[in-house]
This record gives sequence, structure tokens and C-alpha cells, in this order.
Amino acid sequence: MKTAILKIECADRPGLIAEITNFVFQNRGNIVNLDQHTDKKFEKFFMRFEWEIENFLIEKKNLKTEFTKFFQQKKIAAQWEIFFSWKKMKAAIFVSKTEHCLFDLLLRVQKNELPIEIAGILSNHKILQKVAENFGIKFFYVPVPPAEKKLAEKAQLEILQKIGADFVILARYMQILSADFVKNFRNKIINIHHSFLPAFKGANPYRRAYDRGVKIIGATAHFVTKDLDCGPIISQNIAKISHRENVEDLIARGCDTERTTLSAAVKLFAHHRIFVCGGRTIVL
Amino acid sequence: MKTAILKIECADRPGLIAEITNFVFQNRGNIVNLDQHTDKKFEKFFMRFEWEIENFLIEKKNLKTEFTKFFQQKKIAAQWEIFFSWKKMKAAIFVSKTEHCLFDLLLRVQKNELPIEIAGILSNHKILQKVAENFGIKFFYVPVPPAEKKLAEKAQLEILQKIGADFVILARYMQILSADFVKNFRNKIINIHHSFLPAFKGANPYRRAYDRGVKIIGATAHFVTKDLDCGPIISQNIAKISHRENVEDLIARGCDTERTTLSAAVKLFAHHRIFVCGGRTIVL
Amino acid sequence: MKTAILKIECADRPGLIAEITNFVFQNRGNIVNLDQHTDKKFEKFFMRFEWEIENFLIEKKNLKTEFTKFFQQKKIAAQWEIFFSWKKMKAAIFVSKTEHCLFDLLLRVQKNELPIEIAGILSNHKILQKVAENFGIKFFYVPVPPAEKKLAEKAQLEILQKIGADFVILARYMQILSADFVKNFRNKIINIHHSFLPAFKGANPYRRAYDRGVKIIGATAHFVTKDLDCGPIISQNIAKISHRENVEDLIARGCDTERTTLSAAVKLFAHHRIFVCGGRTIVL
Amino acid sequence: MKTAILKIECADRPGLIAEITNFVFQNRGNIVNLDQHTDKKFEKFFMRFEWEIENFLIEKKNLKTEFTKFFQQKKIAAQWEIFFSWKKMKAAIFVSKTEHCLFDLLLRVQKNELPIEIAGILSNHKILQKVAENFGIKFFYVPVPPAEKKLAEKAQLEILQKIGADFVILARYMQILSADFVKNFRNKIINIHHSFLPAFKGANPYRRAYDRGVKIIGATAHFVTKDLDCGPIISQNIAKISHRENVEDLIARGCDTERTTLSAAVKLFAHHRIFVCGGRTIVL
Repeated sequence: MKTAILKIECADRPGLIAEITNFVFQNRGNIVNLDQHTDKKFEKFFMRFEWEIENFLIEKKNLKTEFTKFFQQKKIAAQWEIFFSWKKMKAAIFVSKTEHCLFDLLLRVQKNELPIEIAGILSNHKILQKVAENFGIKFFYVPVPPAEKKLAEKAQLEILQKIGADFVILARYMQILSADFVKNFRNKIINIHHSFLPAFKGANPYRRAYDRGVKIIGATAHFVTKDLDCGPIISQNIAKISHRENVEDLIARGCDTERTTLSAAVKLFAHHRIFVCGGRTIVL
Repeated sequence: MKTAILKIECADRPGLIAEITNFVFQNRGNIVNLDQHTDKKFEKFFMRFEWEIENFLIEKKNLKTEFTKFFQQKKIAAQWEIFFSWKKMKAAIFVSKTEHCLFDLLLRVQKNELPIEIAGILSNHKILQKVAENFGIKFFYVPVPPAEKKLAEKAQLEILQKIGADFVILARYMQILSADFVKNFRNKIINIHHSFLPAFKGANPYRRAYDRGVKIIGATAHFVTKDLDCGPIISQNIAKISHRENVEDLIARGCDTERTTLSAAVKLFAHHRIFVCGGRTIVL
Repeated sequence: MKTAILKIECADRPGLIAEITNFVFQNRGNIVNLDQHTDKKFEKFFMRFEWEIENFLIEKKNLKTEFTKFFQQKKIAAQWEIFFSWKKMKAAIFVSKTEHCLFDLLLRVQKNELPIEIAGILSNHKILQKVAENFGIKFFYVPVPPAEKKLAEKAQLEILQKIGADFVILARYMQILSADFVKNFRNKIINIHHSFLPAFKGANPYRRAYDRGVKIIGATAHFVTKDLDCGPIISQNIAKISHRENVEDLIARGCDTERTTLSAAVKLFAHHRIFVCGGRTIVL
Repeated sequence: MKTAILKIECADRPGLIAEITNFVFQNRGNIVNLDQHTDKKFEKFFMRFEWEIENFLIEKKNLKTEFTKFFQQKKIAAQWEIFFSWKKMKAAIFVSKTEHCLFDLLLRVQKNELPIEIAGILSNHKILQKVAENFGIKFFYVPVPPAEKKLAEKAQLEILQKIGADFVILARYMQILSADFVKNFRNKIINIHHSFLPAFKGANPYRRAYDRGVKIIGATAHFVTKDLDCGPIISQNIAKISHRENVEDLIARGCDTERTTLSAAVKLFAHHRIFVCGGRTIVL
């Protein structure tokens, strides 16, 4: 079933659902699912819906123009985007030395469980090059010496452009990206942090979780912003632990939580379900 | 904020969302939330939405007539109902001797966490009469001797009518209701079964869970149908257990799962979120 | 089955389990369960075991003397305590205005699920007096005006002594206890904090969890130390949330997590299972 | 740290812990952890403990003889086994066409998270041969035509013997093993079943879970016995689902639950933690 997906956010006012769905209906689009949310505090309206496009009266190439006209006519000042269900988002995966999240993503893509195309794997180490090759994915080695981070980020951005990456997945990439870099992919860089944020921001979260004696550890997938581990949270998961588990055990246990949390976030992104409002995500 | 809620189910066809939301919009209703679902197998459309009714052009007393006209005009052969957010559903709670689910419901209602009115408590034992009185709820003692179940059910139905019960909660009521009784409250009797259905239907689920050596126990809230423990499932929860826990421990642990599962189901019902399709629930 | 329970902690060295269990065996004690743990970092040994005491050769009144002799003879410089399974720990419950944790404890004690005796309920408000009376528990109203906190704590300590409280449960008591007060009940005051510590220490955790946009909320039961919300964690639980839930919803949802977490911690304490080592709990 | 592990089960009687730990202590073994359990119904005692073996007075090669003598002398009629922490159990993995559980095991072994040696992969299909080769594991293709199952099992048993497999992991192997085959590996064949047993035994559990409308799906790792999906349960996990997920979604979601459940069970087995008593597992 070929469908188009509309993601829209705008100031809230009565009639938005009716007007927009009516426009689709008038053009013979059959809406197969729809979800919306209104943020009371910010008085903003968010909606995502999907319609069968086969008999849609507006041609694909004219969608953008016609929807633009419609929104103008109805005086809806919205941010909106249209996606097609058969067109996969292109991901660039950044890794360092740790493989569990990378493997997880590769296997899920291979099984068609994650509707993304992996356009390339970038790393500051060569360790995972072999893995990339086994799966037939392009691997880019971009060393990041502390003194030359700026240059490295320039090289990374060029690669991202060359391979046409729509978004970036930090699959346990142990480097901090600069605010400048992040600006290029606003709400389009997904990081997995190995703690239950906002607890244990920054380095060595498992060590610190052990020292604090928590009974539950977690993982958090979030959009990267200029402030470390402070971006909008997309998904979180936890695992119960006991006093018998040492830091190494927590690290091993945490791998499971990290990979399921990261791939869940990537899946939501790939299906165009994530909106950001006031530092929080709305997942429709 | 005063709102009206429309629950509707009908055969699926294009334009339903647009037409219905448009009708509300034309009458100056501001939709504050909407969720819908299409069951592909049964080709059925389900929708629940809520709109601010203060400035709605149709008067409350005319809502039924006007919506009926609208659906006829649009040739939508639907089952639908309208509720008002300020009008609480009236529950009758059936109990036997066990108090934990009853207490849980009473406390949640008292805290305004569950928007229902408890119209009465019915029991085949007098044990929980005191609890009912402490909370100022009418208590009806209806003994159910095996030989006179039919009579007992007649008495129960009369009480339900007298107190104006919209729905029934079986809060660990240990009697099986007859098909005849159930017919009177189709998809309006919520039972809590103390197992993870369909495992351990019927009596003594904790004993059987122990004997089977499961590592997880559960609880299931479901609508009652004529077939024991086979009705549409509304909510389920689980608790992890270990070999150290004996049957009594499971019973104690299970209480927590039962009461959260039952009250979650009652909450969904009270908010008019549950539809039934092909023996499954759709929760919007 | 009447049993005695030995809790012991000491510097680790070979032979501890053998020597101690042998002493019990020599005196015809049948050990029914035993758990131990060695903390590598602190080189400390922790053990808890339970033995049938009916035919034990040492009389109950001589247990302390004989075990003391034994430990001296074996040169085991330990902290240890002996409890009897039929002797319930006496709890004092501190509350303010919120009832859900109090009700939960009262109901579990009433059902014999929590082997404690509630010696009294202390509160800085009169709101929950009625609840205490319904359950036949002594209620002590001790107002805590900011300027006279010291006096109030003196009054509280006198009550605790008078009612013979072995430990204190802060069941959503909204006051901070002074370091002086805490000193009197070292690792014997259990607090429930309504967040997933160490995230959201201090006031308004649900509000802050909402603002941060977390996808999971939690509750933490911990021993109270002089540093707010920093004591050893006993138990933690979580609940998944979505963008649809506002602060009020989180508060309501959190109640369930709080009460199960608190009562789980109290249960472990009542069974003499909790040790503290380096700011972490060991639960045997 | 080099340790030996003793697993023992026998009829319960007083003094067992003391006598056995004392024997280890007398021979200068330092016990680093110990767990035990008594099954009241079957009056059986189970214990697993681990001791540092470096300075143990009994040489490794004499352990079996000396412990046998000791148990005879003390009149302890036990089933017992000794393992060494550095000696990995050898696993044979049976697969059909599905790769997610296999990959999971391979990656965990590669990361040293699972202390087993994969001695070989056996399959009735050639599909996963490449995966085995990528990880440098021997692959044995053993077709199982319905009419020649007996012959196939003979071939499988010969391979297992040749590669020295200590135990067998059925990683979504879609064939039913005969009672004769199972007899050779009593409580040494671990299967992953893709449902929350005892619900949905047999074929197509996700389809049946969907049809029943459950709100939670699960996976169960268990020892294989002659009765299909009825063996002692080792570990179980669940995932919450909604009405939006169709059978394919459940299958995809279930993969995560299956692989974590299976590897958890294999880990417990690899650490010699699992006992079986009355069809239930005791995990020490």
C-alpha cells in the first residue's frame, strides 16, 4: 500500500483537523491513520497522518505546491513536510569502538524491521571497518585528534553531504559534536546515552550508577543539541539490577537496553513520528 | 474545560474523518483530541474524539437528533454514542470476600483519579459491608446459593436497575455470571482475572502457575462474555517471580498486579476509550 | 515454623560461612535459608541466615551471650544482630496530607502481607487522623512550624520512644528531618522519594520530570541520611509515560509506583534483609 | 580469580551447609559465594557455591575422589558436579532459517559476555551457513526430511559427540526433537519458545496471541522434554503491545524478547546455576 505522510505543526486554532483532512478527502485521499496532539502550554497543534496516494487527484510532483497553496488560503502558518512510505530515510551511523548498537541496527535493517537505508558508517577508529564490509556498507575512517576536531567535523559534514544522509545516528560514538556541527542537523542527530537521563549525564554513567547504588539502570535515546545529554528525549528503557552486579556486569546488561532503546528511537524517526516542542518530544 | 466525546464505529470508507470532523467544526466545536483506528480484517473504522462544547452551535439536548440526521445524510451507518466529560459513569462493584481490588477502586475514586461514581457494592458475603460503609457507599448483600443462582441474578439485576448502574466491575467476585445476566451488560462488565490470560483460565491460577514453574505471573482485566475468562482483554500486567516464592507469596504479589490492572481498565472504560472488534479491544 | 535470623557483617576472611554455620549446626539448629555477599572493594562479608529454633540447644535468653562468646573465640570482629521470625518490628509512620502510601501500608499490614506492627502514625497535619482511627492506630498530631522544628523533632522523638518504634517510615512526609534526628535512627528511617533518584532530587520531581520530557518516571525508597535524597537506595520502580500525560497525570500515575516501592522496601526491612556498605544497600 | 563451583542436590536434613562448607574450609578453600534453596514439598536441598581453588589442599585431579569419599563418610546421598570457572561449557546451536537468536548468541560470545564455546552450528537449512563462517564457527548441514527424522537425529547425535557438545541450544530450530534424542541430553537442551508459556504452546504463537487480543506478548526459554513446550521454564520476558500492531509487528517485536530471554537462560546454564525439581527450575 503506497501512502503519503504529512507531518504538520502550527499554532492551535479550531478547525485544523477538519480543514486539513477535508482537503485530502476532496482530492480523493483515503486517510489510513491519523494522530494529533495539542500542547496547551505552547498552544501548538501537531498532527501526523497517512493517506493512500494511488488515486490522489494531486500528482506527487505537485504535492508541495498544492499543499502550500492550501495552507496559504486557509491562513495556516505551519511547518510541514510530506514523506512517502516507500522512500527510506538515509542514515549515517557514527561509531567509535563499540559494536553492539551498530550490529543491532545493521541486523534490523537487513531484516526490514527498520525502514532506513544506511548510507555510510563513519568512525574515528578502524576497528569496526570489517563489520561494515561484511554488511556491504561504505565505511569512512575520520580520525578526530583533539586538536583538529574542527577539521574532522568538516570532513564528516562533507561525507554526510556526499552520501546524502538525511539524519545521523550516534551508535555509541564517544566524541562530543560541536554546536556548529549540530546546527546542520537540527533534531536529526539521534544519540544513545547509557544512562537514565537526566541522571548520570556525561562520562562513565555505569560506574557512577554503581557508586550511587541504584537498583535500576537505563538508557536514553535523544536528539543531540549543543548541550551535552540535554536534548529532547525520544525513548528510554531500564533494567533492574542487584548489589551482586559490578560495574562490568552493568555495562554488559546495559548493552541490551542501549540497543533496543536506540533502535526504537530510530524506528520512530524513520516513520516520521517525532515532533519537538519546548525541549520535549511528541511521538505520534 | 467542558467537552463532549463521540465514540463511533462503522464500515470503513474514505472521507469519514473529514466529514465527521467537518460537521463538528461547522458547528463551532473545537476538537481537543482525536484518535482513530481501522481494522483491516474486518474493514471497520473506529474513532473517538473530544470537543469543547461551550460555544457549540447545537444544544446539548439536540445533539442526538442532529448527529443522527448528519449520519443519515452522509449515509454513514454507524454505531455511535456521545458522552459528556463532566458526567461520570455509574459503576456497580461486585465483590466476594477479598478486599484489595475494592479498596483500590474506592481510594482512586476518592482521589478523583477515576472519574466514576460508585452507585453500589453488591456481594454474596457480608464481610466487606463495613468497608463500603466507611466510604459511604450503599452495600447490597445478595447471597448466591448454588441452587438459587437464577434468583440471585434476578435480584442483582433489579438492584443494578434501581441504582442506575451503567456498568459492572467484578472486583474479585468469585461467582460465574450466567449468559443471561451477561446479555444485559454486553461489553459493560469488567472482570479481573488473576492470571496472564489465556494461560490459567478458571480456578486457582496462582497454584497452577506455581506448579508449572513460570517465572512471571500476571493479571488480566477483560469484558465478561458467556465463555469463562474468554472475553475481550482490556489490560494486562505482570510481575517477575522466582523459585523462592511459594503459592502464598504469588497470591500476595499478585494483588498488586490485579488492582493496577483492574483500575487501569476501569479508567479506560470511564473515559469511553474501549471498542470491541472480533473479540479484541481497540483502545483509543 | 519458629526461626531465628542472624544478620552479620565483618571483615572478609576464609572460613566464615563454615565456622558460623557449624556453630549453629553443633547446637542442633537447622538452617532453612542462607544468603551471603562479599564486597570486594570494602573487603567486607555480609550474611543473613534463618534457622529453626525449636530444638536449638542454646536457650533464647542466652543466645546473645553464647554468640558473643563464639565470635570472640573465633576472633570474628563482627556487627551482628539476632531476630525472631515471630517478633514483628514496630514501625512509626510519618505522614503529611497525602494518603496513598499510608493506606497501602495499613492494608498490607491488615492482610498480614507486611510483618510489622504499626505503633503509631505521626503527622504535622490532622487530615489523616480519621484514617488512622478507622484502622485502630494511634495518631499523634505534631505541628512543625518552620521556626520550631527543633522542638517538634524533640516531641516526635519522645513519641517514638514512648511507642517503642524500631524504625520510621516516611510515607510522603513532606518535612526534612535534621541530621540530629536522623542520628537517632541510623539506617532505620525509610523514605519514599517520588522520582527515579539520583534524578530529580528535592522538590517537585514530577513537574521537573515533565519539563525535562522524560519517557519514564520512577520512585525510590531509601534510608534517610543527613543529605537530602542521598541515602542508600533500597528499591526503585518505574512507569512508562507519554507526551499526552501532564503533570497531574504523572502525579496520579506516580502514586502506584510510590506505594509499591515503599512497601517493598519496608518488607525487606521487616525481614531483616538490608545491609548498608559504602552508601549502597546489599539485600540478602 | 580461579574458582571451582560445586552444584549439589540431595534429600534435606540439618547440617548440610555446615558440613559441606566446613570440608571446603578444612582444605583451605575460600568460598566467594554461596546460594542454597530447600524445596519443602519435595524435601530436597539444593546448593551452589564457588571457592578459590589456588591454595586448595586437594589437587584438581583428585577433587572427584575426595568429594566422593567425603559425601560417603557423611552419608550424604547427593547428585553433585564440580565445574571450573575457566572451563567453558561447549554449546551446539541448532537453527533453521531465522537468524536473530543465532546472531545474538554469537555476538555475546564474541564480547565475552557469555562464557561458552560454540562448538558448532547445526541446521536443516543452508541459509545461515554464511553467518557461521563469518564468525569462524563450524557449520553442519543436516537435512531433516519428515520421513527420515530418525536418521537425521542419528547424524545430529554423532556430530554432537564429535564436537564434544556439553549442551544444545535450540535457537529457533523449528523441528520437534524425539523423546529418544532428548534422553541423551536431559536438562541440557535449551529451547526458546516465542510465547509466554503455558499460553500458546505449539505453532504460530504470535498469530494466536493476535487473535486472542492479548496486550502483552512473551518468550520462554525452557529445557526440552519429551512433551512439546512443557519442559522446566528457565526464563521469561514480555513486551507490551497495542491493538495497532498486526501479526508481523508482533513477530518483529518478539525477536527482541526471544533473544534476550534465550541468552539469559544460556548464561544461567553456563554459570551452572540451574537445578530442576518437580518440573520447575531453581536458579541459584
